[in-house]
Amino acid sequence: MMMVAPGFAQEAAEAASTAPSAEVQYIFNTLLFLIGGFLVMWMAAGFAMLEAGLVRSKNVSMQSLKNIALYSIAGLMYWIVGYNLMYANVDGGFIGSFGPYSFDPVGGDALDTGYSTASDWFFQMVFVATAASIVSGTLAERIKLWPFLIFVVVLTGFIYPIAGSWQWGGGWLSEMGFSDFAGSTLVHSVGGWAALAGAILLGARTGKFGADGSVHPMPGSSIPLATLGTFILWLGWFGFNGASQLAMGTISDVTDVSRIFANTNLAAASGVVTTIVLLQILYKKIDTTMVLNGALAGLVSITAEPLAPSIWQTVIIGGIGGAIVVFTVPLLDKLKIDDVVGAIPVHLFAGIWGTLIVPFSNGDASYGVQLIGILAYGVFTLVASFVVWFILKAAMGIRASEEEEMMGLDMSETGVEGYPEFTRG
Amino acid sequence: MMMVAPGFAQEAAEAASTAPSAEVQYIFNTLLFLIGGFLVMWMAAGFAMLEAGLVRSKNVSMQSLKNIALYSIAGLMYWIVGYNLMYANVDGGFIGSFGPYSFDPVGGDALDTGYSTASDWFFQMVFVATAASIVSGTLAERIKLWPFLIFVVVLTGFIYPIAGSWQWGGGWLSEMGFSDFAGSTLVHSVGGWAALAGAILLGARTGKFGADGSVHPMPGSSIPLATLGTFILWLGWFGFNGASQLAMGTISDVTDVSRIFANTNLAAASGVVTTIVLLQILYKKIDTTMVLNGALAGLVSITAEPLAPSIWQTVIIGGIGGAIVVFTVPLLDKLKIDDVVGAIPVHLFAGIWGTLIVPFSNGDASYGVQLIGILAYGVFTLVASFVVWFILKAAMGIRASEEEEMMGLDMSETGVEGYPEFTRG
Amino acid sequence: MMMVAPGFAQEAAEAASTAPSAEVQYIFNTLLFLIGGFLVMWMAAGFAMLEAGLVRSKNVSMQSLKNIALYSIAGLMYWIVGYNLMYANVDGGFIGSFGPYSFDPVGGDALDTGYSTASDWFFQMVFVATAASIVSGTLAERIKLWPFLIFVVVLTGFIYPIAGSWQWGGGWLSEMGFSDFAGSTLVHSVGGWAALAGAILLGARTGKFGADGSVHPMPGSSIPLATLGTFILWLGWFGFNGASQLAMGTISDVTDVSRIFANTNLAAASGVVTTIVLLQILYKKIDTTMVLNGALAGLVSITAEPLAPSIWQTVIIGGIGGAIVVFTVPLLDKLKIDDVVGAIPVHLFAGIWGTLIVPFSNGDASYGVQLIGILAYGVFTLVASFVVWFILKAAMGIRASEEEEMMGLDMSETGVEGYPEFTRG
Repeated sequence: MMMVAPGFAQEAAEAASTAPSAEVQYIFNTLLFLIGGFLVMWMAAGFAMLEAGLVRSKNVSMQSLKNIALYSIAGLMYWIVGYNLMYANVDGGFIGSFGPYSFDPVGGDALDTGYSTASDWFFQMVFVATAASIVSGTLAERIKLWPFLIFVVVLTGFIYPIAGSWQWGGGWLSEMGFSDFAGSTLVHSVGGWAALAGAILLGARTGKFGADGSVHPMPGSSIPLATLGTFILWLGWFGFNGASQLAMGTISDVTDVSRIFANTNLAAASGVVTTIVLLQILYKKIDTTMVLNGALAGLVSITAEPLAPSIWQTVIIGGIGGAIVVFTVPLLDKLKIDDVVGAIPVHLFAGIWGTLIVPFSNGDASYGVQLIGILAYGVFTLVASFVVWFILKAAMGIRASEEEEMMGLDMSETGVEGYPEFTRG
Repeated sequence: MMMVAPGFAQEAAEAASTAPSAEVQYIFNTLLFLIGGFLVMWMAAGFAMLEAGLVRSKNVSMQSLKNIALYSIAGLMYWIVGYNLMYANVDGGFIGSFGPYSFDPVGGDALDTGYSTASDWFFQMVFVATAASIVSGTLAERIKLWPFLIFVVVLTGFIYPIAGSWQWGGGWLSEMGFSDFAGSTLVHSVGGWAALAGAILLGARTGKFGADGSVHPMPGSSIPLATLGTFILWLGWFGFNGASQLAMGTISDVTDVSRIFANTNLAAASGVVTTIVLLQILYKKIDTTMVLNGALAGLVSITAEPLAPSIWQTVIIGGIGGAIVVFTVPLLDKLKIDDVVGAIPVHLFAGIWGTLIVPFSNGDASYGVQLIGILAYGVFTLVASFVVWFILKAAMGIRASEEEEMMGLDMSETGVEGYPEFTRG
Repeated sequence: MMMVAPGFAQEAAEAASTAPSAEVQYIFNTLLFLIGGFLVMWMAAGFAMLEAGLVRSKNVSMQSLKNIALYSIAGLMYWIVGYNLMYANVDGGFIGSFGPYSFDPVGGDALDTGYSTASDWFFQMVFVATAASIVSGTLAERIKLWPFLIFVVVLTGFIYPIAGSWQWGGGWLSEMGFSDFAGSTLVHSVGGWAALAGAILLGARTGKFGADGSVHPMPGSSIPLATLGTFILWLGWFGFNGASQLAMGTISDVTDVSRIFANTNLAAASGVVTTIVLLQILYKKIDTTMVLNGALAGLVSITAEPLAPSIWQTVIIGGIGGAIVVFTVPLLDKLKIDDVVGAIPVHLFAGIWGTLIVPFSNGDASYGVQLIGILAYGVFTLVASFVVWFILKAAMGIRASEEEEMMGLDMSETGVEGYPEFTRG
């Protein structure tokens, strides 16, 4: 595009120079939530494609089903109980109120909050779905459908909202000065901890780890779908981080949203490039799936503070996120924790990193409080998730039989093959 | 995200509190059409992926071609004749004027309509493409390319716009008080009726129905692509329903757009969960494709009235939409109507349901008038479509030869295989 | 949707009728860059899917990797050096300044430019990535990873920005009156020339052209992914062309953005329909991949001037773009230039066409100056690209070994197969 003509500033100055009215601000703020909301909603498709691409073809229909189901459950639970548990009457405490949420009336014109309640609910709701998506990927290829769905009910209706109330609901951590702008910890690490608890209780896929310590690779069925999923997530992240500014009705706010867009992109780009360079040095081959996870780790890393960093800081933060993936994926294999899509390195480890490093660019944050927050979320989510997974395991079993696992969950759970015509006899 | 600081309301109040000027409203309204328009345009890709995933691999290239072709034809026809047939000088009648449409001049600054004419045209145009997409799915795997494309010319240039003029063009049904906010009937049922007419005249795919009443399943080639298509449609639907508010230049309007976003999402979520529960009860397996259609049926159901329902009403309306899919897909099989992707249950049956139930939440609507509208659209579209399909059948034949059908339409029509390297010898 | 109630104009008139304040304009302009930016960012996914679908399955993982890598490199290079080379202190000359870019500070509230600097940078950055994507498609299936990535570094950091400075940076061509609204030449032809240089130096894929002049078809592995890619690009083009208006804070600007949306869509539609008709006449089969490229050629053709043309002119311009694809794809085969995805016809030839035809609709442009611009970009980009490719070839080799090419670059470069379970033994 051509540069803006020099006349602009002058013309603009000739227009009446008044701050946007409260009404106009309300419209802009609400629009930010709607745009951000649909972008983050789109991330549900991103997780679905990423996971469908990274599981073997015999589990692709199941993985697709789980993803559309979890997004739906998240929406219903966050209305029935989640939103109010997270935001209503937290007052510096540990939990909000019980009860379903309701929206502004038709034609509502109250200006109080500065945005419409339904747009805010919509934007928050898509975040909780993200946390649930993370769990779905780690536990793929061996978890049964119904215990997974029940876990999602508890995670999206209770665990995530209660934990969220501590910070974004104005609870105790927010009063301590904890800082997590768009959810490296509140969304990504919470999802990661819940996934970790499930992975430990569920065990690895049959044949993944040999008794002799060998690791049996089980390559994903479609790299292009995984790539598509990553691009979708990258796109959605502009909404995730950008609309977490919560307002764009003033020049300062929209300028900050812009900074966040650019920083978010640069952190991901840095994650990609760092991963490629490290893979070249270490392995001489550039594993595409590792690079995709490097992009995502860059994005998770910048999510705790996408506004304050300078570009240099952004590139460092995102690059280290990418490096974390390269170094911790093999680590999980050593620990015999079977994380099918690499969600724990990406969302949990890079989420911790991003949260911890906030004070590097944001002077209002302190390393001590960041650590307290990380630990609080870790302990609570891990314990709560263990309890739920444990009850599910005892009550109904969470793992498909070995026979079902061999046949693939597509047939045992959905009755429909992901690719009925393609796979080798 | 953190809750908005309590100071906001105060700051906002300090800003001059005046309603947005007509100019600012015009910009917001136009922007709503543009955002809504590109989201609905994206639904064309959603239908393409849904259908590519649900046909067998030997018809995937053909299905891709049909989808990009129909979207293109819809755009051209809606300019050449469609828009004016639908909106120009209807005046309570049955049809608008003939003639091509033209846009505001470059740099246009007339305020009259409250939005730019090209943005309005763009938004309306993507709706007509949706109706054509519905037909494409039902008739897949045995219709020839050219008669299909010619039908699309007639549907998008004449049938849809004339029918649309009755309501959205300010015609006789709108004067009677018929209510169809975003097109459960005007878009989805119209597409569904046209598809039904075609399916009856075209007949089922060879081998689909046995002489003994047996039904031979012909599973789709790629569940993840069908899932992607469903997510794309879900995303696009925020534009479809949300921008049908037609304005967001006031607090009330943007608040209503937000309600519509949230309701649209909850109706789809309810469709998904209802479908899963019913499938578990009836079949013990959760057919992924049925769940995808459950989401879409929830969306179609709420489209006639996405604004007025409370959340509870939304969840009921969308849930029943999902149930309709579960119960009517087998019904079509019994009637030996071969609807390859399930578009008739989703778009026609759930469209009727959504239109009929409007008075449940909207006191201005009446069940009687809703029924009249449904019948009027059904009779007109079915008859007109039958006539067109019949002429096409007589003049050039609409069905591929049995040999071509066995070989797949990819080779006979496009000369290019959808997946040349994958399918079993 | 229902027509806007006649009362609107009146209500609007009652609202204070004042031009939007400079602040409100700033917010709208910035928002246009952000929305346009994320739409164009999404085009990176479109190129990835298009190319993944059009290469053979043994090169799909490599193609995915190249696309996410080039987008990342483009972002980093355009920060480190590209943006300032293109926009800083060009003053009618041939090049800007060296040095990294930086954004407005947090909470910035300077009104000068009329938009936030980070939103502008983000929007420009995604354009440079588009140019690099074009190169990726042409050179697929035989180029090595590292020389490709190094070429991207030079292209996105230096060649594209320097060339861009001549026109959009306010350089010598802009002073001559050259006209290229959204980049038929600056983006698409530049990418095309760079691809052409690479294709000539790299040579055709082994076995593509027989010694007897025969052409061996190497069909793409997934038509639906190529279709998805095309739809993504089409969607992204609304941002590409629409946001190149640079402003939507006044009625005139947003009305122009709307015209651009509608014209962009109609040019693509015309490209599709023209291609289908020509293919029917010439070959009796409608090659889906050719139609996809017809859509893209329609889009490229209208990109140099998407605002001024009437609809009739738009349809002609886009239609001829589609025809160019049909006639020049075989031409390249005759010249034994192996362009795997058809990017040279689409981006270079249609880009030249679109640039040359600007005076047809825009009276401020002249055919002579358009020709000068086209030649200047062609000579510079071709020479610069040849030099870089030549150095890379001499220094490290740019072509995979024949053995690697036969095995597929997935295994030799990424170590991961694109579809490990699908391809025939």
